[in-house]
Amino acid sequence: MEATRVIELDWSDLELLCRTAIAAAGGNEATAVALTDAVLAAERRGNTAVGVAHLIDYLNALEEGRLNGSPQPVIRNGHRAVVAVTADDGIAQLAVHEARETLVAAARECGVAVLSVSNCFPVGELGYYTSLLAEEGFVALAGANSTALMSLFGAPKALTGTNPLSFAFPGQPPRLVDQASSAVAWVKIREAAEAGESIPSGWALDAEGKPTTDATAALLGPVLPFGGVKGSNLAMVIELLAVLSGGQFSLDSPDFASGADAPRVGMFLIALDPTAFDPAYVSRAEVHFERLRSEYDIDFGRYYRRVEQAAIPEHVHARLAKAVVRSAHVMRPLLP
Amino acid sequence: MEATRVIELDWSDLELLCRTAIAAAGGNEATAVALTDAVLAAERRGNTAVGVAHLIDYLNALEEGRLNGSPQPVIRNGHRAVVAVTADDGIAQLAVHEARETLVAAARECGVAVLSVSNCFPVGELGYYTSLLAEEGFVALAGANSTALMSLFGAPKALTGTNPLSFAFPGQPPRLVDQASSAVAWVKIREAAEAGESIPSGWALDAEGKPTTDATAALLGPVLPFGGVKGSNLAMVIELLAVLSGGQFSLDSPDFASGADAPRVGMFLIALDPTAFDPAYVSRAEVHFERLRSEYDIDFGRYYRRVEQAAIPEHVHARLAKAVVRSAHVMRPLLP
Repeated sequence: MEATRVIELDWSDLELLCRTAIAAAGGNEATAVALTDAVLAAERRGNTAVGVAHLIDYLNALEEGRLNGSPQPVIRNGHRAVVAVTADDGIAQLAVHEARETLVAAARECGVAVLSVSNCFPVGELGYYTSLLAEEGFVALAGANSTALMSLFGAPKALTGTNPLSFAFPGQPPRLVDQASSAVAWVKIREAAEAGESIPSGWALDAEGKPTTDATAALLGPVLPFGGVKGSNLAMVIELLAVLSGGQFSLDSPDFASGADAPRVGMFLIALDPTAFDPAYVSRAEVHFERLRSEYDIDFGRYYRRVEQAAIPEHVHARLAKAVVRSAHVMRPLLP
Repeated sequence: MEATRVIELDWSDLELLCRTAIAAAGGNEATAVALTDAVLAAERRGNTAVGVAHLIDYLNALEEGRLNGSPQPVIRNGHRAVVAVTADDGIAQLAVHEARETLVAAARECGVAVLSVSNCFPVGELGYYTSLLAEEGFVALAGANSTALMSLFGAPKALTGTNPLSFAFPGQPPRLVDQASSAVAWVKIREAAEAGESIPSGWALDAEGKPTTDATAALLGPVLPFGGVKGSNLAMVIELLAVLSGGQFSLDSPDFASGADAPRVGMFLIALDPTAFDPAYVSRAEVHFERLRSEYDIDFGRYYRRVEQAAIPEHVHARLAKAVVRSAHVMRPLLP
């Protein structure tokens, strides 16, 4: 493979480009602001697969009608520590932005609170949501489902999403775990196929549901969960918690990458106020982290680097620019 | 290996034997009742490794002074949805029995509540606690740490417990997941060693922290987490949630199987009232379970059979009887 050419730009210019592209594709201002914040946060962590490059999936979905660009999230808080928000076929990021204040107030008052999002587009970087809470002093746990992409318990078909799990600890900066339930990210299989390389067994099945090491064949079948039966159980648990307030099971969710039907999946986000359990908890844990680091070279939850210079692949930049230009053409007749 | 000889007896007789043995080893009545209830529940599920056979670990611990047989659990409920209970070096089962009513009331009122146990003996069958909540209509999630037995991230030493995770769904009967974070239960390695068999790579390290397939060598080193780095992250997350209210990290926890120092580990137990999220949740999920069962032969959370006839290994029966007899000798001088 040739090296991907990247375009460097200022963060503020990248932010403006993202917002403009989202708006041009049909997202309202609240959607543009929330989604840009999320993809730039991932990009700044070096988590590029769910950074600005992932915006292409959202732009396609907006333009093709399976993502509502002007959603009206509805927040319910009937039980003190449960905040349920329907995303109205829009992005989860906006639903969470709108419900966040209610969640934080409930968690401070009750010691714990759960935000359950339903009817949202797949959530993007799950660690974005847990990090937001950790920055406010909470221990956070989250999970989400998505379109069915992954086999469970050896079944020959995709039965659930790659169902990520995220945990964030309120360190400075937060310590963050964010991992899919799949053995490997689907994009790694695509990379192997493009490079003509084989893949290890245990990554994926082919279109007939048989184990394969042929990357091209694997692109037509489901990925496999990490950790065998235990990983399958974990992926099921994550989905069951993700759809608590009405999100669809992955098996019922239309493809997030094609068609005009909204995926309507779900997410859960638990905020725990550590001071409600033990005022010394955070410092106790930091002592533990420090000995793991100094004695065993384990720096828990510090897997991401801080990216200083924004740099996005040329084709991603081109796609964002195309959205803006296409929109300008549509709007031209309206201009004086 | 020779087949283990078992002794069959009525459940009520087994219950009386367990309670008497616990009392004889130094457990007060509340401890005897709570612990017997837990080991019999596991035994009835066929989960024998943490059933009556596991009682031997508790009897040894009571007799040798590292388990407090007359604990005074203290319950704090300062924040509405957080119940923190110190087990006072006693069994977690008693702490949970005493805090359960408070937890259930909080979860019904707030929609979610968390019970955090500190300073307890290792929790035994984790699914016992989640099942109790599922029987009352809750979706339950729990995790616990224990004495350090398992490596993390390839470290050559045991850094955490085998940290089980349990999930229970309020079906009839509850659907239950209960799995250690280790690749395999330690007892399987012991069985292989006794049979002179080798073990697969990925199960354990030897005393020097090197990967081994020699079961006897593996008995001297730490077990390995399931699922590689993702499994290590999960085990860390479970421990971090388990010690929220003051339980010790596994690295600081004295051996649960020897010595006079209490392990003082921890557990978390989250109760979610599904009706607070969506009145249709349980029936939606049952429809999903049913199609997984009928179309893919996946009966999620139904891994346990119902044991009708109580039958315990002869050596377990002998150990329980020994506790009773030993106690009778001690008590004889006090008798008329």
